[in-house]
Amino acid sequence: MSGQTPDPRQRIVAGAADMMRRRGLAAMSVRDLARHAHAPLGSTYHYFPGGKEQLATEAVQFAGDVVARILRRELAAGPVAGLRAFLALWRDVVTGSDFRAGCPVLAVSVEDDAAGDPAPPVVAAAEVFATWRSLLAESLRAHGVEPRDAGQLATLVVAAVEGAVVLCRATRDAGPLDDVAAQLDTLVGTAVRGA
Amino acid sequence: MSGQTPDPRQRIVAGAADMMRRRGLAAMSVRDLARHAHAPLGSTYHYFPGGKEQLATEAVQFAGDVVARILRRELAAGPVAGLRAFLALWRDVVTGSDFRAGCPVLAVSVEDDAAGDPAPPVVAAAEVFATWRSLLAESLRAHGVEPRDAGQLATLVVAAVEGAVVLCRATRDAGPLDDVAAQLDTLVGTAVRGA
Repeated sequence: MSGQTPDPRQRIVAGAADMMRRRGLAAMSVRDLARHAHAPLGSTYHYFPGGKEQLATEAVQFAGDVVARILRRELAAGPVAGLRAFLALWRDVVTGSDFRAGCPVLAVSVEDDAAGDPAPPVVAAAEVFATWRSLLAESLRAHGVEPRDAGQLATLVVAAVEGAVVLCRATRDAGPLDDVAAQLDTLVGTAVRGA
Repeated sequence: MSGQTPDPRQRIVAGAADMMRRRGLAAMSVRDLARHAHAPLGSTYHYFPGGKEQLATEAVQFAGDVVARILRRELAAGPVAGLRAFLALWRDVVTGSDFRAGCPVLAVSVEDDAAGDPAPPVVAAAEVFATWRSLLAESLRAHGVEPRDAGQLATLVVAAVEGAVVLCRATRDAGPLDDVAAQLDTLVGTAVRGA
């Protein structure tokens, strides 16, 4: 998700997403990030006057959009195809990083204990999770699954895949994603066929 | 999970688990922690000469044991009862903290991007996830579920519940845990009845 892009602003955002999915938000500094994205520190602050919070928010949105684009494209072939693409994408992130990278959207969601309103990156994370869930739920409904079941099943897919990514990182093994893939494939396949 | 205990060492470990499930590992300092656990800084370093890493490792083990004890007890009444207790426990953590606390075992798993061997808290996290999964899988097998399916289903439960806790925190809403509970209840019930 951090592929090189010619736009320097975009490259910094992609770099932030990559750092966050590896080590979380608290351990990330704008200085480290500028180095990571091969961008001068001054231009990083120029593009992101809101500093780390603005960067984290845009990085969450960026990662969310990359995944949503893939989901939208693959769901055109039906819920099972979309599910498989979603799982394959996360399996690539985890195994391609030797189990050192996960999901930046999850990362920002577990470091904020502020009272009252959530911080902007967490608001962005909630929106990303809601988008992924909606895409899956809409596809299930379009294939005849009853609305309540479609919504619950879509939540289960997003939650289980996010959780499995964490289990894979902790255990340094892709087994948890493979277990979850096998169970969800059957479940989504049965829901669509039974609809 | 941070209930007051008379043993000062144990109270510091419980305090660390509580801080980690709220703000993650990177943002936690031993100084903050000593204050949080009402323990002198000197005694904190006396009990935990390995500092933050030792504390985080023991906090992960402590939180893992609390959950494993509840799981073991409730699974005596069968897989569905165990699943419901597991879900109820996490729902209490999330709603009881006004969506500001999650799982310390997950928190340490997403902040380590070290090359090579994982850090000791991550090794402890992998052991905790494996224990919870084994307890669920053994119970499913004891109730006639075929071993491979039991293992996959147990992974799905742990992954989905961990993921749903994160979704609840991000969205400040218990809906994701309720959706996942409804789906897993049906799934585990069907697996046991069909066995």
